[in-house]
Amino acid sequence: MQSITTELVHQTITRRPAESHKGTYGRLMLIGGNQNFGGAIIMAATAAIYSGAGLVTVATDASNFTSLHAQLPEAMVVDYRQTAYVTQLLQTMDVIIIGPGLGTDQLAANLLTTVLTHVQAHQRLVIDGSALTLLAARQQSLPDAQIVVTPHQMEWQRLSGLKIADQTPTANRQAQQHLHAIAVVKAHHTTVYTNDRVWFNPGGTPAMATGGMGDTLAGMVGGFAAQFPDFTNAILSAVYLHSEVADDLAQSRYVVLPHQISAEIPKYMHRASLA
Amino acid sequence: MQSITTELVHQTITRRPAESHKGTYGRLMLIGGNQNFGGAIIMAATAAIYSGAGLVTVATDASNFTSLHAQLPEAMVVDYRQTAYVTQLLQTMDVIIIGPGLGTDQLAANLLTTVLTHVQAHQRLVIDGSALTLLAARQQSLPDAQIVVTPHQMEWQRLSGLKIADQTPTANRQAQQHLHAIAVVKAHHTTVYTNDRVWFNPGGTPAMATGGMGDTLAGMVGGFAAQFPDFTNAILSAVYLHSEVADDLAQSRYVVLPHQISAEIPKYMHRASLA
Amino acid sequence: MQSITTELVHQTITRRPAESHKGTYGRLMLIGGNQNFGGAIIMAATAAIYSGAGLVTVATDASNFTSLHAQLPEAMVVDYRQTAYVTQLLQTMDVIIIGPGLGTDQLAANLLTTVLTHVQAHQRLVIDGSALTLLAARQQSLPDAQIVVTPHQMEWQRLSGLKIADQTPTANRQAQQHLHAIAVVKAHHTTVYTNDRVWFNPGGTPAMATGGMGDTLAGMVGGFAAQFPDFTNAILSAVYLHSEVADDLAQSRYVVLPHQISAEIPKYMHRASLA
Amino acid sequence: MQSITTELVHQTITRRPAESHKGTYGRLMLIGGNQNFGGAIIMAATAAIYSGAGLVTVATDASNFTSLHAQLPEAMVVDYRQTAYVTQLLQTMDVIIIGPGLGTDQLAANLLTTVLTHVQAHQRLVIDGSALTLLAARQQSLPDAQIVVTPHQMEWQRLSGLKIADQTPTANRQAQQHLHAIAVVKAHHTTVYTNDRVWFNPGGTPAMATGGMGDTLAGMVGGFAAQFPDFTNAILSAVYLHSEVADDLAQSRYVVLPHQISAEIPKYMHRASLA
Repeated sequence: MQSITTELVHQTITRRPAESHKGTYGRLMLIGGNQNFGGAIIMAATAAIYSGAGLVTVATDASNFTSLHAQLPEAMVVDYRQTAYVTQLLQTMDVIIIGPGLGTDQLAANLLTTVLTHVQAHQRLVIDGSALTLLAARQQSLPDAQIVVTPHQMEWQRLSGLKIADQTPTANRQAQQHLHAIAVVKAHHTTVYTNDRVWFNPGGTPAMATGGMGDTLAGMVGGFAAQFPDFTNAILSAVYLHSEVADDLAQSRYVVLPHQISAEIPKYMHRASLA
Repeated sequence: MQSITTELVHQTITRRPAESHKGTYGRLMLIGGNQNFGGAIIMAATAAIYSGAGLVTVATDASNFTSLHAQLPEAMVVDYRQTAYVTQLLQTMDVIIIGPGLGTDQLAANLLTTVLTHVQAHQRLVIDGSALTLLAARQQSLPDAQIVVTPHQMEWQRLSGLKIADQTPTANRQAQQHLHAIAVVKAHHTTVYTNDRVWFNPGGTPAMATGGMGDTLAGMVGGFAAQFPDFTNAILSAVYLHSEVADDLAQSRYVVLPHQISAEIPKYMHRASLA
Repeated sequence: MQSITTELVHQTITRRPAESHKGTYGRLMLIGGNQNFGGAIIMAATAAIYSGAGLVTVATDASNFTSLHAQLPEAMVVDYRQTAYVTQLLQTMDVIIIGPGLGTDQLAANLLTTVLTHVQAHQRLVIDGSALTLLAARQQSLPDAQIVVTPHQMEWQRLSGLKIADQTPTANRQAQQHLHAIAVVKAHHTTVYTNDRVWFNPGGTPAMATGGMGDTLAGMVGGFAAQFPDFTNAILSAVYLHSEVADDLAQSRYVVLPHQISAEIPKYMHRASLA
Repeated sequence: MQSITTELVHQTITRRPAESHKGTYGRLMLIGGNQNFGGAIIMAATAAIYSGAGLVTVATDASNFTSLHAQLPEAMVVDYRQTAYVTQLLQTMDVIIIGPGLGTDQLAANLLTTVLTHVQAHQRLVIDGSALTLLAARQQSLPDAQIVVTPHQMEWQRLSGLKIADQTPTANRQAQQHLHAIAVVKAHHTTVYTNDRVWFNPGGTPAMATGGMGDTLAGMVGGFAAQFPDFTNAILSAVYLHSEVADDLAQSRYVVLPHQISAEIPKYMHRASLA
């Protein structure tokens, strides 16, 4: 098991080339946010945009459009019931995030099917939240694409079949190999399972133990994946910075709110890019 | 009569254990916010989340979903007209807050009945605002649960039958014993009546005399009750910090707005946890 | 013509008594904000609440509820089409503001009629914006109440019949006497016409020349009138502080936005209360 | 090719005359924001208002009213489907911005036709975003008015017929002469083509390469055009300050969000006005 290091983050987050435009930094679609959990997709989209993704579209329940735009005019929106339009847009994306606040009803299941059916080998896919519960219920192998799953321990239990007490690095590793996706198993110290290694995140604070923190991480993972060529390093850097920001904010706060993390991301990325 | 002290607050707000997750800090449901008073439930939910409650769901009029999410994506929402769903969710909660902006119509009365019928002995219940007016109109004893009522003096008059001029500590104590709930009687200096003592809150400023300040306190009481094992100390600490934050903000403000209190809570709790 | 002075403001904005509650600081209703001009009533309500009015209700088009609550949960709302309910609430108010973003259609005219019909002698009434245009079109004397009109120069022309070039202090004074209301004639240096005097506001900056600045002043005038016993001094103090805040903000800004004024009011009032 | 200079900006942004009112600083209408791209018109309107335009009306899809007002109460709104009302309002405007988030459907095309048909010689018109794509598809000469187009390189390709690799200053100049409008061609270093010169913007940072940055520039161009007599200098100053703010914010941020630019504009304009 190897610790994610500041050096790895600094090597990943490079200075942006002068000659570039928003397309250079990726097209990203988030899918989630039903009528009850709309906040989750707002928090994930906020994190993706503050992480620097170039063009962000949110496919969500139409009842979430206004609250999303009220705080995040930078995102575009599409009704996730417009299947044909969503499917068409999916082809144009570099990164897809599915799951934050998605729920587990038939519509949610259909959206996951759409994504798993249409995702292309060159695309990157983040599966989070409710989509992991849906995925666990299927006995289906993942399609050929660059995929990362971001479960907390209970979601990982559902997905891997490993009870929380049995989630040792070795067992997790084995489960991840079977899954054919990178696995970010969220805990006090998050561990990341890639094809050839087990990574350990040194940061993390119980001040992060609040609803929406995972949605924010999913958004960051997607945002980083939209910009940085090495998929694994993009994921590891997102995990590392997410907890580093939280650790710093927790120096003066009993609880850190998800949107407070997102607000800080551009500064932390800037510092990393200079080193 | 005994003053709430900084020491009590410091003993209550302990450092969070490293190995913990959002579930550790409680599931909390707020019920309130009709079509006219939606702001009240937004302010209460904001206070609960900034107090560190782990998972917060707001059962409210559907017309309030968007304004709530626009400033507080961290909350989940449910239409309080979906009685079956609300009742089902209630079973899973650690803390329930009913009343902020609830109103006193038939729907409100039915929601209060649902809560009083289904609340379980291990759950904690905060009854505030309009729900106190509804409660006063019933001649019904409270169910077996950990209950706190948070009336201002006029609401306490309705609930206790004591005219404001007659609300002496002794008389209040007697009324509270009859009620079988902890009573937080809000005034310039708030007093708290527990089963065995009368507590006096040393803080408080007329800069707090503005609409929504009570909703914010209700949210803090619920948020603290979701996290700290001793129910009485959780309540006393919320009362104390609520006025301490206000007193500090009033050093430079003629009036303190409720949302300004909430924004400060994580810092005050952090300081208390260090001491 | 006499200048409004810091001393007058300091004498008006007194320290709040310790034993007080939100009712002490007034019940205030704002009426305005149609489907096109909803922002105006939001800005006016914001100013009223940040000025310290105890309980603020906004009667507006229902389409404005969400945007209002998204930034100002402290306000209560009512659909201004619910005539019976609005009329009933009107009786309970200390201060009524009518006009910001109201428009001039039949509904607006009816609302003005309702207010002028039901306003009571002990109530205070601020007539602003579109309501002034409506008022100018009627040849009707004002009811017996404490009334202030807050026109800019063009609205004053409509109301007084005086062309802008003819709006000298003497002519304005005469028109005001005829109107039986205090008149705040907004200009680079605003003048205020009371029953016995003409007041001159020393502050003001062209950085205030932006949409919504007048709505903010109307909200401040109402908020101050809800709290301070002398109606004239309340108005004069609101006029003075409104431009004082703007002058200070304009030290570093080419244009001052209305909501930026409101955010500063509690601090300026606090300072005035100490002097 | 000539660099836009600080001196030019300082000469353009003059101190506001004391005797002035909101009408002095222009009436501006923005047209855009369909059901998917509502954020674009919010960002453009925000930039226009923070640039100091006196009275700003947004013609957009009605579903965007609430999110717009939730963050920008200073703007007025009108449903862009109310053709007669929009057309009537158009006559009263000093500046019109069409395009941010407008989309390219039939409604969008009709709105562009309405604007091009009704715009008057004394009015100023900013054509941006989707409206440029619509314009490129027509073989129609522009009407007699003060017009500026603000394409990024791909939009300029559509409009001018020049492939990105062929967009040399000389070729662009020729295309602009043919177009009969000032052209702001957005790139890492933006170039501006006026009737007699080619201007080069010295600022710009890849931290600006994010969705919405162009909408913000369009809003600034319109806001400046509403206030400053020389149309060319107004455009050049907006381009210059837009990137100057971004360059400064990028000193500490990996990505600069559009709304962060707008928040800074009043301070930068103030400084320019003093010099």
